[in-house]
Amino acid sequence: MRETKMICTMCGKEYLGEHFRCSCGEPLELIIEKKKSVNISWKKSGILESFSDLLPELKDCGSLSMGEGLTPLTKIEHAMKDGLELFIKNEAINPTWSFKDRGSYLAVLDAINRGYRNIGTVSTGNMAASIAAYGMRAGLKTTILVSDSIPEEKISPIAIYGPRILRVNGDYDRLYFRSLELGKNKNIYFANYDIPIRVEGSKTIAFEIFLQLEGRVPDFVIVPTSSGGNVRGIEKGFRELEACGLSNYIPRMIVAQALGCCPVHRAFSSGDNQIKRFARPHTIAHAIENPFPPSGNAVLKILRENQGITVAVNEDEILTAQRQLAKRGLFGQPASAVAFASISKLKNEIGIKRALVVAVLTGSGLKYPAVLKEQPSIVEATDIDSLQDLL
Amino acid sequence: MRETKMICTMCGKEYLGEHFRCSCGEPLELIIEKKKSVNISWKKSGILESFSDLLPELKDCGSLSMGEGLTPLTKIEHAMKDGLELFIKNEAINPTWSFKDRGSYLAVLDAINRGYRNIGTVSTGNMAASIAAYGMRAGLKTTILVSDSIPEEKISPIAIYGPRILRVNGDYDRLYFRSLELGKNKNIYFANYDIPIRVEGSKTIAFEIFLQLEGRVPDFVIVPTSSGGNVRGIEKGFRELEACGLSNYIPRMIVAQALGCCPVHRAFSSGDNQIKRFARPHTIAHAIENPFPPSGNAVLKILRENQGITVAVNEDEILTAQRQLAKRGLFGQPASAVAFASISKLKNEIGIKRALVVAVLTGSGLKYPAVLKEQPSIVEATDIDSLQDLL
Repeated sequence: MRETKMICTMCGKEYLGEHFRCSCGEPLELIIEKKKSVNISWKKSGILESFSDLLPELKDCGSLSMGEGLTPLTKIEHAMKDGLELFIKNEAINPTWSFKDRGSYLAVLDAINRGYRNIGTVSTGNMAASIAAYGMRAGLKTTILVSDSIPEEKISPIAIYGPRILRVNGDYDRLYFRSLELGKNKNIYFANYDIPIRVEGSKTIAFEIFLQLEGRVPDFVIVPTSSGGNVRGIEKGFRELEACGLSNYIPRMIVAQALGCCPVHRAFSSGDNQIKRFARPHTIAHAIENPFPPSGNAVLKILRENQGITVAVNEDEILTAQRQLAKRGLFGQPASAVAFASISKLKNEIGIKRALVVAVLTGSGLKYPAVLKEQPSIVEATDIDSLQDLL
Repeated sequence: MRETKMICTMCGKEYLGEHFRCSCGEPLELIIEKKKSVNISWKKSGILESFSDLLPELKDCGSLSMGEGLTPLTKIEHAMKDGLELFIKNEAINPTWSFKDRGSYLAVLDAINRGYRNIGTVSTGNMAASIAAYGMRAGLKTTILVSDSIPEEKISPIAIYGPRILRVNGDYDRLYFRSLELGKNKNIYFANYDIPIRVEGSKTIAFEIFLQLEGRVPDFVIVPTSSGGNVRGIEKGFRELEACGLSNYIPRMIVAQALGCCPVHRAFSSGDNQIKRFARPHTIAHAIENPFPPSGNAVLKILRENQGITVAVNEDEILTAQRQLAKRGLFGQPASAVAFASISKLKNEIGIKRALVVAVLTGSGLKYPAVLKEQPSIVEATDIDSLQDLL
């Protein structure tokens, strides 16, 4: 494997080889070497082959791939009436039903290529299930660190894959950094939220959108935002398409958060360069409930440099959007509904009209069924002989 | 739209136009007109365009497609050691996370093309969610008939799409036929289990397997079997590939059922030509708990004509297989685990060796999380400062 070059997203310091984070505390990103001519194309064999010209050199010799990525871009017809051309990038159609599988696949390959026999992550949701699935599939010793307060209903869909699960009591943000430290000492590859290779996974979302829109670039891409790794990856993807001459435009990124936990929205709205920890986070959109996002400052920088926007929506708006989106056939988890809820907000408050918009549906609505209790069902009753009168 | 020709799977009577079932009571299948040269290819635009030469003429003018089908074929490495080359066709990676979306997509298009404004189905599970999603997306009045005993946890992931839900008290098998009757009178297209267009949807599974194996045909295809519509579709697909000269072999179909509800296995093992109603069905594999499958006799015929096999597995074997499959990264619902559980059974009892085998994973393990309570999680606890000692 050729050694990878990285650069700090904030201070610009360069690194060679294996690093997860800059010494200044901020996230690193991979530098993709410029090739004379770059080709990307949709190959059913997977994201590695489709986008090899713009991804780090990784080999999947052991058939680790489970068909992650290459997800549908689904049109929402009704939005057209309002001048918007709206598409949903449906990441719920992934092997563990969230966008995390792109980064997990690459991270597990990276771990194997670097000789690791142990992989781990810090998560209670989508990423935990994803690393559990890919880590176990690869035959690695797989450890998932979860927070002490995680309910059983969130553990069982991780445990089914068979990893070691450790409930850790203590500050959750500290656990992110502590696990990277311990990983170094103990030879465990901690594939946490926004490590560089994960960002490369998210990047492929941008490449696919570009191919699916047949070379058009969206005006706006709306991304439900937690750690910030996904929005960073998508922006990086469009940035690289522009850099290699395939496109001439980078979409404006829209960071969508829940009002109950919106550290990026709050900092950006206040004109701050630094994320402040969001006190007492509480939202139904668990998957993006991250009070102190480790890529938060890097995301603020992206937003400033490229006319980005942030939006925050309340709990009712999230639940309403979840239902509205399902009526169009797409059942996303609450965190994904946040992106859809943002659209009407943007139209009212910022006045987006006649624009090409892509919203990322990050994970399946089946992920946390307890949430459905907030969406009461109306059911009528009858018997088979009276059915005729009701139809 | 050109009128479609159909033939009864059992008595051979031919039909022209819109029919759901033969007057003899048995299921119909569509006759695809022979073309001079047939081409199938993997197109990211969807199953209609990929397989148009072998599908009925249907137009999707309103962007109904949500990227159904074109699912991964995932290799299970460990099986190779035993001489088996094993692949899982992962139908959990579909818009509503089961294989039903293929048939629902085509059924809703068929309904629209025929001028229907109303669609319905009889189901409590995968098919209900699937028809709810596609029916509502198409803007049709969508009615789901569910049985009286359905628990709330099964209703909410259907209700989220916004269809009308009717709990119907009375014999569930009778409801299948009664709904088709009422549909005729009331102008409601009842897209039930094994109607001809649904079988066309399942057919595309065979086409994809053929393309994914680069023109090889599996020796065996294992299908968890409920109504029988899916196994009929997959067999029809391989039959058509052979008929048009693309392949020269039809795989032996393996019908996999749970011992707690195995009417096809029981009839086939006894050498019967007719399915008998399975008394007191009870299995954790709810999605295939159909005591009197409406395509049962047609499936028996397929099995007899093509050296088919039936297998039934017990509840422990299902739960063990669900876990084993998840350790390879694939989390299927219990009904899907039935197919995987069948493999060791087949090796022990029938002695399959050095064979190319495809097992169909029909739906996501997230579908009925209550089942996970049967799969106890092992979780260790620690605090952040003691973490080092445990890693």
